[in-house]
Amino acid sequence: MNSTFKKDLYRYYGEAGESPIRRLFRPVELKYLALFRKTQSIKNPLLKALYTARLKCLSYKTQIQIPARTKIGEGFYIGHTGRVIIHPDAVLGKNINIGTGVTIGQENRGKRQGAPTISDNCWIGTNAVIVGNITIGQDVLIAPLAYVNFDVPDHAVVVGNPAKIIQKENATQGYIENCV
Amino acid sequence: MNSTFKKDLYRYYGEAGESPIRRLFRPVELKYLALFRKTQSIKNPLLKALYTARLKCLSYKTQIQIPARTKIGEGFYIGHTGRVIIHPDAVLGKNINIGTGVTIGQENRGKRQGAPTISDNCWIGTNAVIVGNITIGQDVLIAPLAYVNFDVPDHAVVVGNPAKIIQKENATQGYIENCV
Amino acid sequence: MNSTFKKDLYRYYGEAGESPIRRLFRPVELKYLALFRKTQSIKNPLLKALYTARLKCLSYKTQIQIPARTKIGEGFYIGHTGRVIIHPDAVLGKNINIGTGVTIGQENRGKRQGAPTISDNCWIGTNAVIVGNITIGQDVLIAPLAYVNFDVPDHAVVVGNPAKIIQKENATQGYIENCV
Repeated sequence: MNSTFKKDLYRYYGEAGESPIRRLFRPVELKYLALFRKTQSIKNPLLKALYTARLKCLSYKTQIQIPARTKIGEGFYIGHTGRVIIHPDAVLGKNINIGTGVTIGQENRGKRQGAPTISDNCWIGTNAVIVGNITIGQDVLIAPLAYVNFDVPDHAVVVGNPAKIIQKENATQGYIENCV
Repeated sequence: MNSTFKKDLYRYYGEAGESPIRRLFRPVELKYLALFRKTQSIKNPLLKALYTARLKCLSYKTQIQIPARTKIGEGFYIGHTGRVIIHPDAVLGKNINIGTGVTIGQENRGKRQGAPTISDNCWIGTNAVIVGNITIGQDVLIAPLAYVNFDVPDHAVVVGNPAKIIQKENATQGYIENCV
Repeated sequence: MNSTFKKDLYRYYGEAGESPIRRLFRPVELKYLALFRKTQSIKNPLLKALYTARLKCLSYKTQIQIPARTKIGEGFYIGHTGRVIIHPDAVLGKNINIGTGVTIGQENRGKRQGAPTISDNCWIGTNAVIVGNITIGQDVLIAPLAYVNFDVPDHAVVVGNPAKIIQKENATQGYIENCV
């Protein structure tokens, strides 16, 4: 099993692997993540192209749309089954939790043209949208339905639409478990 | 046919059953609801475990994620095909209408730690998110995209993010039909 | 190939057709759009009923819920794979871009009872909700997560929940490409 995927599994189960029964009933988000990590680890260009096509097909089926070239740190956790869209140019750190209905996308023009960078230990609630060439700091909790198109410093809760920043120590405490 | 599911069907069609043609083209949300009500009605523990596993598999496929032990009153109506997430500890009353993209979830810390209780005759619009150990009163219309993490009294419309409460008699009139 | 669908394809690829390799890996949203345009073009009532039933089944599978009788202008573009719900009475113009998680729906009572009319060259961001008998002008960009239940004039950006109108020339510049 892929070593990065093992760390993702640790986030889910608190152990670096999965039992046969868990593997049998593996949720679709873990199926996607397994193929995503595998595809990223392949060096052979032809094999990589084949796996990338497989991943694309799986994304049509599962609505999880995270292209193979997206940089995502170890310990990635998708909270439920459902649509998740991440732009290929987005960069995500370690121990990120993401809800369903979330889009991490680009702005197409202006001074924030581009896609977000999200630091370690961030929690992104369901249906939140994060867009533009912005930077989200460490230990940031983005509330469900928040619309974020600006920089966010470390240790903050972001809530509302338009969203507001509330500084808070241990912002993600109780929300991010089994860190790697 | 399960008697509670018959009451759910009444919400859809105004009659306690479905014609063969409707059954043939049964939408996925009704397929889920039929299996959900069936699973809840089973007493035999082994059979219940098997049905619970079937329901889990169907939730990966349909993105409707309502665990078998969630308490939901008669006359439950899912408005469209799509992702719906309800926490197992949430309690829903009778004649609830729910849109797609909705999450009824828990808060993980603080004074509202836990999952919501929603009273009879509530309408929950698409993409709304309701979280925390809160109580939503009767005859409450939660607008699409509202983010609700506080108590709501009877007879109210809730709209916005952050959401605001507007007291209104017959708040759900025209939105909840065929009550049981 | 259906002539309207060719114009939709032009929005995707900048050419009025698709290569065999693109057809082989056609995303589910284009599969839906192909069947939708085909169904609309059929005159024979029996055949139309059959295709309408096929489209309904495909909508359960893809979560794209745009009934066959919905009026949508040429050059319709669904940005990603995921749930899209459009009311049958809604009217959409040409060169509309729509994100996933979007609902274009009806209000069930009051002075705005009915479904929206959306003019040419509008961009509708992910998870936005547009409801009621309202009119959206030309060249309008509706931001992700915006909740819109009021008229919007030409050349505007709409953002927030509750949403606000910001007048802006070329509001959709950089967001709507390959116009037909």
